[in-house]
Amino acid sequence: MEKGILFVVSAPAGCGKGTILGQILKDEKYYYSVSATTRKPRPSEQDGVNYRFLDKAEFEKLIAEDAFLEHAQYCDNYYGTLKAPIEENLAKGKHVILEIEVQGAMQIRQLCPDAKFIFIAPPSFETLRQRLEHRGTETPEVIEKRVNAAKKELEMKINYDYCIINDILDDAVADFKSVVRAEELKISRKA
Amino acid sequence: MEKGILFVVSAPAGCGKGTILGQILKDEKYYYSVSATTRKPRPSEQDGVNYRFLDKAEFEKLIAEDAFLEHAQYCDNYYGTLKAPIEENLAKGKHVILEIEVQGAMQIRQLCPDAKFIFIAPPSFETLRQRLEHRGTETPEVIEKRVNAAKKELEMKINYDYCIINDILDDAVADFKSVVRAEELKISRKA
Repeated sequence: MEKGILFVVSAPAGCGKGTILGQILKDEKYYYSVSATTRKPRPSEQDGVNYRFLDKAEFEKLIAEDAFLEHAQYCDNYYGTLKAPIEENLAKGKHVILEIEVQGAMQIRQLCPDAKFIFIAPPSFETLRQRLEHRGTETPEVIEKRVNAAKKELEMKINYDYCIINDILDDAVADFKSVVRAEELKISRKA
Repeated sequence: MEKGILFVVSAPAGCGKGTILGQILKDEKYYYSVSATTRKPRPSEQDGVNYRFLDKAEFEKLIAEDAFLEHAQYCDNYYGTLKAPIEENLAKGKHVILEIEVQGAMQIRQLCPDAKFIFIAPPSFETLRQRLEHRGTETPEVIEKRVNAAKKELEMKINYDYCIINDILDDAVADFKSVVRAEELKISRKA
């Protein structure tokens, strides 16, 4: 049984990362790495699907046991990526998709030299702004903040292996699949 | 204008490399690197299509001018890969396909660190033997020699970046396209 490949995926908000991954994850050869958190589940959220919901004591016990690949604290809550489900699924031959922001991705770069890093980018900042405006859920100030955050994150893309521009969804999904297939065909993977 | 990528392709005889490349080269984004030679053209061969046919004096003048990426002598004839058409087409943004045997490929590895190396392999030696027998053009002794040569060449594949197994032609062509697309999406290409 050939081991799977760990794909670490980052994208600024509004780049359509969720939609692309939704298409990709239809294929059972992938396992989506679910983050653990101590924040309370929202009504629509399910344990093990959106997050693994843990209480603070459980989370801290797992930190002490070195069970996390990376973890961080935001707004008094812990967030982290558990090692065990990733390792188990890679061993089963599944490709693991790990969705994480750029700082977290760079931590994983150090720890998992075999992982492949994919950055999903908007075709332009103008398109990104339009997409965020189109959602209609954010104020102009928040949109401005998000576009500026995206500009900063985009500078980080040089630390990734691949950049997929999400202009037309089907093309972006096909590009993602090409990256996965090419990585499957790499000789260094088998050596 | 983004530069093209040089793809160096090797395969043992009978792996269907020609058929795969025939499909790939239908797309005008590729330029097929034609070898130069001093051997006489066969009746079916055209200058600039199968080979660039040069006389010995011309070839040696080009050697002296360092015009070749690599060259070698077999059976009193010169064979070589001219630098200029490759560089011109890469600069025009075309991907260059360079078909060459394993020793030549390893020379190019040293000279072109940005080139990507693709090895095309048969699904098994048994399949390779059947394909060669099916051609009906070779004696059993020649087939045995070719299969043994393929075994040796296959050991060289660890020096390549990608290995595409030609079991089903359409899949092998799709794999080749995935490799090219993934290489187009690489961030190191743009950095």
